[in-house]
Amino acid sequence: MQDLQGFFVFGPQPGQPLGVRPGHSTTTLGQWDPRLRGLFTFLGHKNVSHSSESLKTDRPGLVEAGRRIEVESFRIIDREMPDHSFSPPQWEVVRRVIHATGDFDFARWFRFHPRAVDAGIQALRAGASVFVDTRMIHAGLSPWRLGWFGNEVVIPAVHPDSHEWGQAMGTTRSVAAFRYVSRRMDGNIVTVGNAPTALLEVVRLIREEGLRPGLVIGVPVGFVRADESKEALWDLPDQPNITVLGRKGGSTVAVAVLHALLELARHAREEEAGE
Amino acid sequence: MQDLQGFFVFGPQPGQPLGVRPGHSTTTLGQWDPRLRGLFTFLGHKNVSHSSESLKTDRPGLVEAGRRIEVESFRIIDREMPDHSFSPPQWEVVRRVIHATGDFDFARWFRFHPRAVDAGIQALRAGASVFVDTRMIHAGLSPWRLGWFGNEVVIPAVHPDSHEWGQAMGTTRSVAAFRYVSRRMDGNIVTVGNAPTALLEVVRLIREEGLRPGLVIGVPVGFVRADESKEALWDLPDQPNITVLGRKGGSTVAVAVLHALLELARHAREEEAGE
Repeated sequence: MQDLQGFFVFGPQPGQPLGVRPGHSTTTLGQWDPRLRGLFTFLGHKNVSHSSESLKTDRPGLVEAGRRIEVESFRIIDREMPDHSFSPPQWEVVRRVIHATGDFDFARWFRFHPRAVDAGIQALRAGASVFVDTRMIHAGLSPWRLGWFGNEVVIPAVHPDSHEWGQAMGTTRSVAAFRYVSRRMDGNIVTVGNAPTALLEVVRLIREEGLRPGLVIGVPVGFVRADESKEALWDLPDQPNITVLGRKGGSTVAVAVLHALLELARHAREEEAGE
Repeated sequence: MQDLQGFFVFGPQPGQPLGVRPGHSTTTLGQWDPRLRGLFTFLGHKNVSHSSESLKTDRPGLVEAGRRIEVESFRIIDREMPDHSFSPPQWEVVRRVIHATGDFDFARWFRFHPRAVDAGIQALRAGASVFVDTRMIHAGLSPWRLGWFGNEVVIPAVHPDSHEWGQAMGTTRSVAAFRYVSRRMDGNIVTVGNAPTALLEVVRLIREEGLRPGLVIGVPVGFVRADESKEALWDLPDQPNITVLGRKGGSTVAVAVLHALLELARHAREEEAGE
């Protein structure tokens, strides 16, 4: 009891290995070769959680106590907000965000493109990648749920060269990294929880360069340009999108939206299978 | 431009290495030996960010555009909420939470033990560890700021055995893991952003077993027991603590509180140095 033996302790630690190619040796940041993409997997904790070892232990709490708490929470939210104008699947999304924030105000500000929920479900079921702008979104996403359809999560801004791209392009690291990967976003899910500039860049790519993500989830938070970026997204007539107008949003909101869509996608698969 | 080459792609990937001992080989989950604590460092992305390589690139945006946006955001918040009853350092905390959530309602619900901010600053400056209940908090914490005083972040619940401890103790993984590490929490900072049960356990350990954290930040979110757990924390007369009464809270709030305290700690050091 007295010791921290074996706990994962995160602290300043130079010279870390960066990733591994399955069956090969570990790669450090210095040795890293971009051409390894496809073989190279970043050594994040999510990867550990994806292993068969930890899939066993990923949801034990939820099966027992946690799932009861979730059901009870949703019941309280339904009781306190019996009237709203969302469709049942849209309400699954909004309700999970209220659950994750304790804030009913989100029901006022959520906006769904008419095809947004269906497009999200379809993309997830087809194994779409999920592009995100923060490491918090990645950390919050349930490996258990991501495993249902094998959706992988990509954080463009953590690329070690993203700062240099930003300087070369005269913009921020987030914008440069999103621009760099943009041609891989077609048909996939693009999620912005923090950087209004990244969302404005996604809107520009859609308007000017023909980018066609399967779904854009635009929920940056803040007092400077966040509302403007979300209005710009909402103004796109043909792009399936989900947003929260105004100042509120953030990584927690983005995670809740994605979890709701993953749950809806699993439900749709089970319905089809006649379960 | 067309390729994802070199991006960190997170996806289902069995058999991941788990960590590394500096100067030694990589350890997999199967090979993992708890006695390596102190030498063993989990291969999270934060570790990569702590390396000298990425410290260079951790705050480039903030130095230029981002810092301006932060200052502008704080100015807007000050303008829209000129009157409040917080001390200047307490307001630094509350304002950063409003900044991170877009939600002025937090000003109504924040509570500070009279010694809370000073205790937090003192603990951080002394190099305290920060115990957290979610990987999202860890992912959201700035490696740059953690590096100022070398504070390390510990997530007890990610221990691979935590599920077994929970079953043995007849409780959840979060509670079991917090209980397991509790004797290492004295003088350090304990932060709960998600699990009310973990916060209730911390309160019990303080009341019944003499636990004395330097500071408890209790901001779990939710509709079932979250408010009860925060009331219980707030009722402790002698434990420096920061909480948000009611339902609101979460990992984003926890990160903002810790960032504000780190900024205050750096400011205190600079004041003393006569800068």
